[in-house]
Amino acid sequence: MSVTAAKGFQAAGIAAGIKENGNPDLALVVNTGPRRAAAGVFTSNRVKAAPVLWSEQVLKAGELTAVVLNSGGANACTGPKGFQDTHATAEKAAEVLDIGAGEVAVASTGLIGVLLPMDKLLPGIEKAARELSEHGGEKAAIAIKTTDTVHKTSVVTRDGWTVGGMAKGAGMLAPGLATMLVVLTTDADLDSATLDKALRAATRTTFDRVDSDGCMSTNDTVLLLASGASGVSPGYDAFAAAVRAVCDDLGQQLIRDAEGASKDIRVEVINAATEDDAVEVGRSIARNNLLKCAIHGEDPNWGRVLSAIGTTRAAFEPDRLNVAINGVWVCKNGSVGEDRDKVDMRYREVHIVADLAAGAETATIWTNDLTADYVHENSAYSS
Amino acid sequence: MSVTAAKGFQAAGIAAGIKENGNPDLALVVNTGPRRAAAGVFTSNRVKAAPVLWSEQVLKAGELTAVVLNSGGANACTGPKGFQDTHATAEKAAEVLDIGAGEVAVASTGLIGVLLPMDKLLPGIEKAARELSEHGGEKAAIAIKTTDTVHKTSVVTRDGWTVGGMAKGAGMLAPGLATMLVVLTTDADLDSATLDKALRAATRTTFDRVDSDGCMSTNDTVLLLASGASGVSPGYDAFAAAVRAVCDDLGQQLIRDAEGASKDIRVEVINAATEDDAVEVGRSIARNNLLKCAIHGEDPNWGRVLSAIGTTRAAFEPDRLNVAINGVWVCKNGSVGEDRDKVDMRYREVHIVADLAAGAETATIWTNDLTADYVHENSAYSS
Repeated sequence: MSVTAAKGFQAAGIAAGIKENGNPDLALVVNTGPRRAAAGVFTSNRVKAAPVLWSEQVLKAGELTAVVLNSGGANACTGPKGFQDTHATAEKAAEVLDIGAGEVAVASTGLIGVLLPMDKLLPGIEKAARELSEHGGEKAAIAIKTTDTVHKTSVVTRDGWTVGGMAKGAGMLAPGLATMLVVLTTDADLDSATLDKALRAATRTTFDRVDSDGCMSTNDTVLLLASGASGVSPGYDAFAAAVRAVCDDLGQQLIRDAEGASKDIRVEVINAATEDDAVEVGRSIARNNLLKCAIHGEDPNWGRVLSAIGTTRAAFEPDRLNVAINGVWVCKNGSVGEDRDKVDMRYREVHIVADLAAGAETATIWTNDLTADYVHENSAYSS
Repeated sequence: MSVTAAKGFQAAGIAAGIKENGNPDLALVVNTGPRRAAAGVFTSNRVKAAPVLWSEQVLKAGELTAVVLNSGGANACTGPKGFQDTHATAEKAAEVLDIGAGEVAVASTGLIGVLLPMDKLLPGIEKAARELSEHGGEKAAIAIKTTDTVHKTSVVTRDGWTVGGMAKGAGMLAPGLATMLVVLTTDADLDSATLDKALRAATRTTFDRVDSDGCMSTNDTVLLLASGASGVSPGYDAFAAAVRAVCDDLGQQLIRDAEGASKDIRVEVINAATEDDAVEVGRSIARNNLLKCAIHGEDPNWGRVLSAIGTTRAAFEPDRLNVAINGVWVCKNGSVGEDRDKVDMRYREVHIVADLAAGAETATIWTNDLTADYVHENSAYSS
């Protein structure tokens, strides 16, 4: 279903030959209208890939007709030639779809610092255009995979309108955003300002709180396109909730497919003085390599949780901190709590609660354990 | 030589039975004078172990006669009982040495969240006091090891005076300080204000720039004790340089013994607008798990260096960044530079230069690669 679950969209996913192994590597998503409203959120990394710089520009008009996405190369740190390549990609899509290049967003993922094989990518766009279909969402989702072991899609249907989407991402997952390419589509009849507001609200508490390995990508892109084809204009709250639900679902799928992970860790920070404090503490815990190794070893090492909390600026008193792992309060008042042998860590899901005892705010960060498989996968990625 | 290289010091290292495997686990260092000037630097983690809280207090007077150090337990996150245990440790040392408890610093290292076996530690202090010797520095250095594979000592001798020291630390190495217990001694005849100034200046550019795994300990302690036994009062600059040399040497030894590491990585940031910028960028690179995995795989993946730089607030333009790995400028002007196949990564030492092209300041951060052995060691540490 993916990006073609909503009415007014076509998509395709093909093998253009960008990846040497012949796997699908090029996706095309087209909004057939009647509306072409769009919004986007991009990486906060200051080293931005060429397609990010391009797509940020074209989105300023609040309209998109098509998105070209490729795996097999990030087109990041590729200089003026890389930007020219992104421009040529948009021009080619514009030509075959008979639209303007300014209506085409581009997203790329793969190795940094390598130019894309344009002699394969440009003919691939022609091929993808020929295969555009209202049932092409699944193939598009497959074509944007890199080290993903599964493709990720999600759909929410409401009274006469739908929000659907696809995502890729498995490594380099960290906030701002969790490294990913995401395209969401809806047939709701809404303007770009409404899309933008709903998308920013959704990503702030979903993708931005997925932190697999603390590494922030140069290419993160989340796009939301609205065709208006349902003829329904839902209220903002209902629409924002649907967008959030799809983002949340896709974010969870990203974490479950994180490179080398054997545990999915939900870090819930409670009783913080502010939401910012809760997020800062959650991230500090989620990024602590020693804790991530301990969780991998099924060791409820709460000392490493406290050590991570201690590095933050959040409001708390060390002797009032409490920590639960999988429901057992192993740390009470900053010291030894319930028997750690009671903690059952056999399952993939791990739930850490950090109680700051400093207020009433809360935040949840999602992360993984750190494993030898993660090391193996990422020490061999470009070799 | 270690802490007894300088005149006016005795030390001992014994097995008190704190470690279940019977290895040495208790060290005692005593300043026999005539001076007892001292200074200390402690972890900036807000969750501080009981011995850190104690030693910070006693150091306010600028004098120390003895330091008790134990491995086999960090006495961190142990509540009021943990603090009582540290107090009792200082009292016992004071009793056997016939001094005041306020002249005794305590340092502990090992697992967080476990109370120390005081029935073993207190008799251990009596035993250590009986074995105090002017040749005991080496044994003391051995007794403070945890996962260290080797003990670390360093000595610098100048015109009639000496600075020597010992360090432990292998995991949880990160700034503020790199996790460690360090005791430095000197027979220079200097007051505590001078010691403090020289020690802070030295740690700022040595231990504080060692960042093995981004994790900050609850127990970091660096102490400098001066006996004045040489009768020489060196000038500040000469003394500070000697202290810095010993700290630098010990810091390098810590990095070379970091848990599971197969590569020692020197991250040199040049042409930064400010020293703070250089340090921030160096840390960001040093903490990037993906880059650390790539280095482990002998992959000169400069894209991950740029991606790490991009997450900082430092002054730079993305298209002016340059990166060299082992002397090869693989990234020029933010894009593809010299042939990455020219980079020779066979050796343990790896040198990354990040040129921000934004000023004239520089900083060097030391780190390691991320390996499957690190994961194994830290997923099994407390089990």
